[in-house]
Amino acid sequence: MQAYRTLERRFARLSALGGATGILGWDSQALMPDGAAEGRAEQLAVLRGLSHEILTAPETAEALAAAEAESGDSDPWRAANLLEMRRAHAHASAVPADLVEASSRACSKAEMVWREARRDADFSRLAPHLAEVLRLQREIGRAKGEALGLSVYDALLDGYDPDLRRATIDPLFYDLRSWLPGLVARARDRQAEEPEPLPVEGPFPVEAQRRLGLSLMRSLGFDFARGRLDVSLHPFCGGATDDVRITTRYDEADFGRAMMGVLHETGHALYEQGRPAGWRHQPVGEARGMSLHESQSLIVEMQACRSAEFFAYLAPLLHAEFGGSGPAWTPENLHRLHTRVAPGFIRVDADEATYPAHILLRYELETAMLAGDLAVADLPGAFDDGLRDLLGLDVPDDRLGCLQDIHWPSGAFGYFPTYTLGAMAAAQLFRAATSAEPDILPGLALGDFAPLRGWLRQAVHAKGSLLTTDALLTQATGTPLRTAAFRHHLETRYGGAA
Amino acid sequence: MQAYRTLERRFARLSALGGATGILGWDSQALMPDGAAEGRAEQLAVLRGLSHEILTAPETAEALAAAEAESGDSDPWRAANLLEMRRAHAHASAVPADLVEASSRACSKAEMVWREARRDADFSRLAPHLAEVLRLQREIGRAKGEALGLSVYDALLDGYDPDLRRATIDPLFYDLRSWLPGLVARARDRQAEEPEPLPVEGPFPVEAQRRLGLSLMRSLGFDFARGRLDVSLHPFCGGATDDVRITTRYDEADFGRAMMGVLHETGHALYEQGRPAGWRHQPVGEARGMSLHESQSLIVEMQACRSAEFFAYLAPLLHAEFGGSGPAWTPENLHRLHTRVAPGFIRVDADEATYPAHILLRYELETAMLAGDLAVADLPGAFDDGLRDLLGLDVPDDRLGCLQDIHWPSGAFGYFPTYTLGAMAAAQLFRAATSAEPDILPGLALGDFAPLRGWLRQAVHAKGSLLTTDALLTQATGTPLRTAAFRHHLETRYGGAA
Repeated sequence: MQAYRTLERRFARLSALGGATGILGWDSQALMPDGAAEGRAEQLAVLRGLSHEILTAPETAEALAAAEAESGDSDPWRAANLLEMRRAHAHASAVPADLVEASSRACSKAEMVWREARRDADFSRLAPHLAEVLRLQREIGRAKGEALGLSVYDALLDGYDPDLRRATIDPLFYDLRSWLPGLVARARDRQAEEPEPLPVEGPFPVEAQRRLGLSLMRSLGFDFARGRLDVSLHPFCGGATDDVRITTRYDEADFGRAMMGVLHETGHALYEQGRPAGWRHQPVGEARGMSLHESQSLIVEMQACRSAEFFAYLAPLLHAEFGGSGPAWTPENLHRLHTRVAPGFIRVDADEATYPAHILLRYELETAMLAGDLAVADLPGAFDDGLRDLLGLDVPDDRLGCLQDIHWPSGAFGYFPTYTLGAMAAAQLFRAATSAEPDILPGLALGDFAPLRGWLRQAVHAKGSLLTTDALLTQATGTPLRTAAFRHHLETRYGGAA
Repeated sequence: MQAYRTLERRFARLSALGGATGILGWDSQALMPDGAAEGRAEQLAVLRGLSHEILTAPETAEALAAAEAESGDSDPWRAANLLEMRRAHAHASAVPADLVEASSRACSKAEMVWREARRDADFSRLAPHLAEVLRLQREIGRAKGEALGLSVYDALLDGYDPDLRRATIDPLFYDLRSWLPGLVARARDRQAEEPEPLPVEGPFPVEAQRRLGLSLMRSLGFDFARGRLDVSLHPFCGGATDDVRITTRYDEADFGRAMMGVLHETGHALYEQGRPAGWRHQPVGEARGMSLHESQSLIVEMQACRSAEFFAYLAPLLHAEFGGSGPAWTPENLHRLHTRVAPGFIRVDADEATYPAHILLRYELETAMLAGDLAVADLPGAFDDGLRDLLGLDVPDDRLGCLQDIHWPSGAFGYFPTYTLGAMAAAQLFRAATSAEPDILPGLALGDFAPLRGWLRQAVHAKGSLLTTDALLTQATGTPLRTAAFRHHLETRYGGAA
């Protein structure tokens, strides 16, 4: 146990450094004055450099080998913790320092150029920088792959979602692709047969929106003694252990964006706040991966809070904050307003039914680029063809096309699929939860999220990284990740299925 | 130069860690949810531990020795930088790690007990903890003193104010003591002969107070691209290089507290924002010490912003924000309200003329305690005797007496004198500034602080730690620190001298 205990102390130190990095990163986006950007970048680089040094130090490698050689630990948490320590060490030590640095520099440069290229809808300006980022990501994937015994793409996936492999994704996405376009078409036909929902008229004062968001967070069980709600340009959930900070952005013409954003981030936050208390500063106490993380935000935003039940609870709150009344403000009309299917160019604005099409496209394109089957120069054409094929839209310019996301310029290859895997997992978990716990759906109509939260806490949050994603899903729902529950959910809500 | 360059890189890293610590420390006081306290303490401990490791690493000592052996550097900034690196290293490496840790633990404990003891006005509860803190501070002072060739108290002073010695303080405070009580008495006699100033009636809404504070900060030249104003229970100036964060606290019954607090902290902030651009991440680019730092806050709060000129500018701003009118809101009455001499028990509430008496007392008591001439058990009596002697006040209980400050329980022996040395330096610098730059005083009446700021920038801020405090004062004012300008200032403002 001695080597293992040494590792626990080292990883607790790394957790503290990670927490410091998380708060400073949050501050950068929520509060920091512009002129502090350079100094902050340096602070973060130093903290990340020190973390990397501690993680890849010879002492860490020796303690890992010694702990693994110690007689098998009968405690499943300690055993899983050791596995996650090994994974973190393998990822960090696989990539030579100069490659990390070159990639970090190339990504910073490409992100900067991307902002201008997107503004001017000029892909050609980004192309050489994106090509360089791609080349370095491929090298990183190759280096990690050699260390982990994985293909390039699987090695990158593993960095976002431990144990996720293309072999898992491909059949799920193949199936999804087979029925999604038909479902979207049917949903739109059905919508066309009904009268349009009535619009709600603003303005919706920021203070009232903020009160509404805080009130919903309280109902959901967000622990304000261990977290905050603030404002940033790009909403996110960040911060540190026991200090979970979510952000939103208010639009006085539309309360729905901030409200749904707050609900989404609160889903992420509940996962973070519910991680296993005794292990929160160890790798096994971390959230399991990006797919499950996204499932927790989507269970709240999409499964629970776009239900008819929830709108029965919500409508009086909206009336109290915004004073609206009349037929536009009925629970039924508000619910219809928030469950429209409308194909559009921009992924982050997409509804629940068309969102997966955006992900299918990006998954195809990024795997092809990494494999060398798609040249960066050919990306705009391939993107536009794909969107026409999947959603019947003609992309007018690259700003609304392949320049819309920051992920690729910032080097995040392997991240996109987790959005839709998360949506699938959300549907599968919510179905299991509502079957096991009959109080969940009636609770939503009362603003009583305790039954849902209680189920998620034991089935997901409190598990940390003890199990693989598929093992966790199997324990909680009876099967590994499947498309069936997601399809059933979309058919029921949008396709007119019973 | 090679060893020196190595040191510059190491100290730039330390500066980044210091910046991260500064922002996290600010966050703890301004925003952090309560439940995050334990995790934050861990983050700060790890960052401080890593800084200490880097600073005391054998590589740092070797590079220091090598750089000092390199042929004398003709560049005065690099030479001074090397001296400050050596000072930082000497302070850090003089104290054994277990003594640092024991002291840190004892201070945390004593601070905790102090909060309760103060609340209950029960010194006996604090006494054993304060005795332990004192014992450990004495040990730290002894260890540093041996390394630096200084007495115990001088070694502690040097940690707050480089090169400050008792031999400098004693004659200044001896002189101060000789004339201060008489001056206070005359000021009060003079006040008694005049009609009382008229009170201004609130409430003063927080939003209006905040706008006023921001407006004054802008006039003073605070750079909001490199800093912020927020709220905390105990106002301070913190943050990081190019990210200077000041805080205040609003009282709707009294706008003066927050306003004067903002002016005070803005004075600190201007010093931080004006540090030499090319050296801001090196020791020589740091502010010189606590006395000069306090001088910059007091030049703004006391010298400039309690002048009759400033109130001519301020009165219309107050009218615009609070709508007050009539004889209480004239510049003259407002000025009189903010320049009252009134002996009181609490140091932080003291006016400019009686404040030094509080410091004289604390200086006498802390030097006596460190020397073993005053037992902790005898502190309350000595404190009460001193306050009676200096200000003619009878302390009713220890909450209003020796329990009022956190400094001693938190181990800050050697800090108190810098408040009054700062007040002396402020008067001396302001006198030199207004002599050299005739636009300063008329500028105050217009809210034009550029002439004052310009003078301070070149004479103080941009010097960083290039010079000793006395050398800087001599360059800027013609003499090292003296009491004459402070006495002249107090006599003129309060004593009726011309």
